[in-house]
Amino acid sequence: MKRAQQALARYLTLALALWAGAACSSFAKAEPLRPTGAEILAASLPSDWRLLDPENTLYLDFNRPDGTQARVVIELSPTFAPNSVANIKTLVRAGYFDGLFVMRAQDNYVVQWGDPKSERTLPIAKTLTAEFSVPVPKGFKWTALADGDLYAAHVGHAASMPMALNKDKSQMWLTHCYGMVGIARDADADSGIGHELYAVIGHGPRHLDRNVVIVGRVMFGIEHFSTLARGTEALGFYARPEQMPKITAVKLAADLPAAERMAIEVLRSDGAVFKALTQSRRNSPGPWTKNTAGRIELCNVQIPTRLSVKK
Amino acid sequence: MKRAQQALARYLTLALALWAGAACSSFAKAEPLRPTGAEILAASLPSDWRLLDPENTLYLDFNRPDGTQARVVIELSPTFAPNSVANIKTLVRAGYFDGLFVMRAQDNYVVQWGDPKSERTLPIAKTLTAEFSVPVPKGFKWTALADGDLYAAHVGHAASMPMALNKDKSQMWLTHCYGMVGIARDADADSGIGHELYAVIGHGPRHLDRNVVIVGRVMFGIEHFSTLARGTEALGFYARPEQMPKITAVKLAADLPAAERMAIEVLRSDGAVFKALTQSRRNSPGPWTKNTAGRIELCNVQIPTRLSVKK
Repeated sequence: MKRAQQALARYLTLALALWAGAACSSFAKAEPLRPTGAEILAASLPSDWRLLDPENTLYLDFNRPDGTQARVVIELSPTFAPNSVANIKTLVRAGYFDGLFVMRAQDNYVVQWGDPKSERTLPIAKTLTAEFSVPVPKGFKWTALADGDLYAAHVGHAASMPMALNKDKSQMWLTHCYGMVGIARDADADSGIGHELYAVIGHGPRHLDRNVVIVGRVMFGIEHFSTLARGTEALGFYARPEQMPKITAVKLAADLPAAERMAIEVLRSDGAVFKALTQSRRNSPGPWTKNTAGRIELCNVQIPTRLSVKK
Repeated sequence: MKRAQQALARYLTLALALWAGAACSSFAKAEPLRPTGAEILAASLPSDWRLLDPENTLYLDFNRPDGTQARVVIELSPTFAPNSVANIKTLVRAGYFDGLFVMRAQDNYVVQWGDPKSERTLPIAKTLTAEFSVPVPKGFKWTALADGDLYAAHVGHAASMPMALNKDKSQMWLTHCYGMVGIARDADADSGIGHELYAVIGHGPRHLDRNVVIVGRVMFGIEHFSTLARGTEALGFYARPEQMPKITAVKLAADLPAAERMAIEVLRSDGAVFKALTQSRRNSPGPWTKNTAGRIELCNVQIPTRLSVKK
C-alpha cells in the first residue's frame, strides 16, 4: 500500500512538474510561483470565453479504420476568408463531404480529406480567387504578440486564432500553427475552392502561410486526426482505398437542432485572461523551470477550449 | 479507365503540388523551378550521408494496444549530454526498460516512457548534475542557421540534430524540435537521470530548452509514437495500466550482431546537400509556391533519414 502511495505521489509530482513545463506558471520573475496557468484559467469568468459560432462551426464525423467513430470540430473564420468559407458552407449544406474520405495523413505535417476520385459533382465554381490574405478592416481589433516572428512583420491573435499582418498592417492572414485548417489546391492559386481541406498535425509549417487559404481552426478533437495511421505513399497519401477513414457526415452546427449542438467554448483572445495565460507560458518560472524563455513563439501560444456543462 | 487516369493524374498533381509546399523547390528566385528538394537528394553522394552510430543508437521495441509491434530508433548524442547518455546506456544494457511502458501521450506535446510504479531497482545514481547545456568544445564544428531565432542567440545543426548556442558561443544545447528525445525529471534539476524519457510529437516546445536535458533524436519510426492514442488523464497520462503500450525491449545497436542492425542513414548536417536542401525549403518558389517565405525556422529544417539497401 505504501509503495502504491509512493508511486502515486511520484506520478503526480512528475505530472505537475511536466505540467509546469507544459502550460503553467507565473507572471514574472519577481513572483515565481503564482499564478499558474491552471490558476489563471480557474479564476476566469464566463465572459472570458465564448461559444463557438454555430453559423461557422463544422462537425466532421468519421469512422476510424477500427470501426469506431470520431468527431472533429472546426470553427471557420469568414473574417479571414469570406468567399472560401462561403464555398465550404455551400459544400457542407449540399452534403458534398458526406461519404468522402481522409486521403492523407503525413507525419509532422497534415491530415487531408476530400474526394479521392474527383467524381462528385461540385455545387460551386471550379475556381476561386485565392484569399491568401485579406485587407485589414477599418478599426479591426486584434491582440498583438510582441515577441517577434521569423515569418511575418506582425503576429498576434484574433477570434481565438493565430494570425499575421504585413509591415504596414494593411493585409492580414491566418497562420499555419497546429490544428489550423486550410484549403488544398493544385499549382494554380485559384484552384483551391474548398472541396479538399487539410489540418496541421505537426510543427507549424509557416512557409505555407499566404500560399494556401486558411479557413479556420480545429477547436475540438484534433487528436482524432493526429493519431490516424500515416499513409505509406509519398506525402502520406494512403496506399489503398480501404485504409482511408470514411467521413460519415460534415454538418454545420447551425443546421442542427439546438439540443444536438455541442457547447464548446474557446478562450477569447482579446481579454486579460488570454494575456495572462500567454505571459505565464512566456515566463513560466515555477519551481520546475530553471531557465525562463522570456519569449513565446506564435504557434506555442495556447488558446484553450472546453466543453461547457451548461444545460 | 479514362476517369481513373484523370483521377490518378489529379491525385499526382495534388501530391506534387503539396510536396512542393512540403519539402521541395529551388535555390533562388532567379531560377524558380530547379532543383527541387527531391532532385537535391537524388543527386546526393553516399558521402553526404552517414550511418547512425551503433554505439549510440537505441532500438526501442514496443507493442501497440492492438498487439502489433513497433520500433522507434533513437540516436543519442554524447557530445551534447555525455553523462546523461552514459546513464541511459547503462540502463539499456542492464535491461532496465525491457517490460516497462509508454505512460503518457499528450497531443501536440510529448510521448513519455518509463516505470509507472517506480518499482525497478536503478543501476545508476539517483541524481545527476543536469546537462542543460555543455561548453562548446574548442574547434567544435556546427552549421549555423542564419535566419534568426526567437529563443536563442544562435541556432544551427550539429551531428544531424538541431542545436542552439548562447550569445558568446561558449555554451550549446540541443533544442526541442519534433522528434527530439529528452529526460523527464521532477522539480529538482538533478532528478533527471535518464530512466524516464520523452519524445516531442508536436509543435516544438522551445520554452523547454535548457530546462530538460535533450539526449538525442528519433531518427526512424517517430510515427509509431505520434499515432499512439492520447492518454485521457491530465497531461496525457494513460488512465489505466492496460492502455499503456508495453516496451518489449530497448537495445543498443552495437550490442546486436551486425546482421541485426538496421542500416539507417541520416543526411550529414555539415555538407553542401544539407545546405542546398535547407535553402530550397527556405525559398521554395516552385510552380506551386506563390509567396516565398525566404526564411526558415529551426524546427522546420528537414534532416532526412533513409533505410539504406546495402547488404
